Amino acid sequence: MQRTLANSRRHHQITIGILGGGQLALMMARAASQLGIKVRVLDPSPVGPAKQSVTGGVDGEWSNQETLRAFASEVDLVTLENEFVNASLLADLEERGHEVLPSSNTMRLVQDKFIQKQTLLQAGVPVVEFRSVVTPEAMQAVGEDMGYPFVLKRRTLGYDGTGNFTVASPEDVTRAVERLGGYDVGLYAEKWCPFVMELAVMITRGRAGETVVYPVVESRQENHVCSSVLAPAAISAELAQQAQSMAMKAVQAVEGVGTFGIEFFLLPDGVLVVNEMAPRVHNSGHYTLEACDCSQFENHIRAVCGLPLGSAAMRKPAAMVNLLAKTSAPGAPCGMAEALAVPGAQIHLYGKLKASPGRKMGHVTALGETAEEALATASRAANCISFED
Amino acid sequence: MQRTLANSRRHHQITIGILGGGQLALMMARAASQLGIKVRVLDPSPVGPAKQSVTGGVDGEWSNQETLRAFASEVDLVTLENEFVNASLLADLEERGHEVLPSSNTMRLVQDKFIQKQTLLQAGVPVVEFRSVVTPEAMQAVGEDMGYPFVLKRRTLGYDGTGNFTVASPEDVTRAVERLGGYDVGLYAEKWCPFVMELAVMITRGRAGETVVYPVVESRQENHVCSSVLAPAAISAELAQQAQSMAMKAVQAVEGVGTFGIEFFLLPDGVLVVNEMAPRVHNSGHYTLEACDCSQFENHIRAVCGLPLGSAAMRKPAAMVNLLAKTSAPGAPCGMAEALAVPGAQIHLYGKLKASPGRKMGHVTALGETAEEALATASRAANCISFED
Repeated sequence: MQRTLANSRRHHQITIGILGGGQLALMMARAASQLGIKVRVLDPSPVGPAKQSVTGGVDGEWSNQETLRAFASEVDLVTLENEFVNASLLADLEERGHEVLPSSNTMRLVQDKFIQKQTLLQAGVPVVEFRSVVTPEAMQAVGEDMGYPFVLKRRTLGYDGTGNFTVASPEDVTRAVERLGGYDVGLYAEKWCPFVMELAVMITRGRAGETVVYPVVESRQENHVCSSVLAPAAISAELAQQAQSMAMKAVQAVEGVGTFGIEFFLLPDGVLVVNEMAPRVHNSGHYTLEACDCSQFENHIRAVCGLPLGSAAMRKPAAMVNLLAKTSAPGAPCGMAEALAVPGAQIHLYGKLKASPGRKMGHVTALGETAEEALATASRAANCISFED
Repeated sequence: MQRTLANSRRHHQITIGILGGGQLALMMARAASQLGIKVRVLDPSPVGPAKQSVTGGVDGEWSNQETLRAFASEVDLVTLENEFVNASLLADLEERGHEVLPSSNTMRLVQDKFIQKQTLLQAGVPVVEFRSVVTPEAMQAVGEDMGYPFVLKRRTLGYDGTGNFTVASPEDVTRAVERLGGYDVGLYAEKWCPFVMELAVMITRGRAGETVVYPVVESRQENHVCSSVLAPAAISAELAQQAQSMAMKAVQAVEGVGTFGIEFFLLPDGVLVVNEMAPRVHNSGHYTLEACDCSQFENHIRAVCGLPLGSAAMRKPAAMVNLLAKTSAPGAPCGMAEALAVPGAQIHLYGKLKASPGRKMGHVTALGETAEEALATASRAANCISFED
């Protein structure tokens, strides 16, 4: 199956297989379904967000080669909702004739953040200064060269601040390495980067290399987890253009197909560096569901199917606030009635059965005349909702 | 369970049962799922639009009392995607302690169009002149009093022009009565009404009688089926207000809870009369998904659950074009790639397995600076799509 997939058969006889069954899979599946495209979702949990709401759920581990092979043979193409599926497992599927998008090669370049940064740097995309650390000696050299604090990171499997450790002094090193799993899991160091703003760009790249770039947004974090997104970010048009152009270079560098999220740090001197890229739809692009002509989810589906990409034009400024649980509790929220009473707030719950500290349980989007006005609306609704015992 | 449903339990432990599994059920189910509310869908077809895409499908006839009882006992409340479920079957559920919204009483007043019109008239809502016809003698009197042509209609089970017959002369009468099923099915006559425009208003009424009224739209028909909708309609503010106020009166007259569609004829002299009302979400309100703060589907879910209603404010002018099949053919469309290349067109396919003449296979919505501009965009995309053998 090649670039002609969309033309080679009647439209909705296509079935897309998604590896992972969380809220990102759910929202991709909804977008596919709206386009009349069938979806199957592979996830070990029988009660994750996608399986709660959409048909096509398949129970199984996406880290198991045999399971992956069986799943791939039942769909027309395989795509991903996370960056954790080992690239070599995906390459095996490709070797057996299955289409995987983004490809195993893209995933190999992105899922190991050390390789990701090397790749971006080679493509001329500025990144935070980074260094491989495979031994205690290398670690000491990093401290001496980069200075303290620096950030020690796992090369793989990190997200939302897990897999990161801020090393404030030489005394922290042992604990940091232990906490992250030891040198053997693969670690690298990044220079401490006192940014003034975090920015993000969603971008979709099609099979023929065509791209659609969404507006630059500001991503606000609490405890290393995105708490809210303002679209567009309050930055100059020049800076926005620079971020979008860097996003295009980054996705081209990994030959990505589908929707990608590129996160940036804006430094005090106005310099922009890429923090990291996610080879998938992304939390910072949820606002596109209400605010843009074609959402990040629909554009992902269009891209992997070889269909024309949709317009990323923003209809109105928007903001998104994550609904993060504070404690372990049942997944059903309190305060929904109060939240729904806030005019213009669009509430999304993911249907997770259990809440745990920091877990993303849903999000609220609002539109407004300005992103700040939208943020006020979304926050007002989000603040009503809690997950309590 | 009373008005406190939303407060009486954690939010998404609510399960809504929908009678009917077509595209309206699908879009209601998606709205519920986004709010973290579970859905079950009762429909005889195992492959209808809702069951294709969302979980919770139950195979069974919604015209069977035992099936309905079993279904109702597994959900917290029962709602409807069509007006064809016999009100007495719904009353039976209510007598057994199940909550049905809209209620059996509302359905009794609406599903028989003769009773519907009597009810509206009594509430002071102007309707087209109508008359019961139970015998050939009455029919002759109608022809003499109303003049020819007049429209003969079934009192129940009509939709999209089925169940209607235009009687042009006394010679047509026998054929008309035969075609509609005979006097015994229940017939009534309506005066021929040469309107200049068809208008529609979606309205949602909550459990406490609060209402949210959507903008007045123009509904354009081809062969008695809605082909496109322009939102807002190009009418004066006074006329729009009049239509919205008539819609409120109409829904109050039947004590409706949930989303209702009210269709109007605008007569050459500027007078507005109600054509008919649908006790459910409606084709002429599909544009609300993209164009309004809260869609007709989400507001229906909110209303029946006793949750605060969402804002019906329109973000931008919009238009919707139905994707109607012309012949019998497979349900998978041709021309999707071309249609998706139209910037700003939002394409919705319902996933129906088979097309047949006049069948609604999907719709296209677009936003624009004006409704006419949006219509041009939506039409351009819709014209690319066909259902062919």
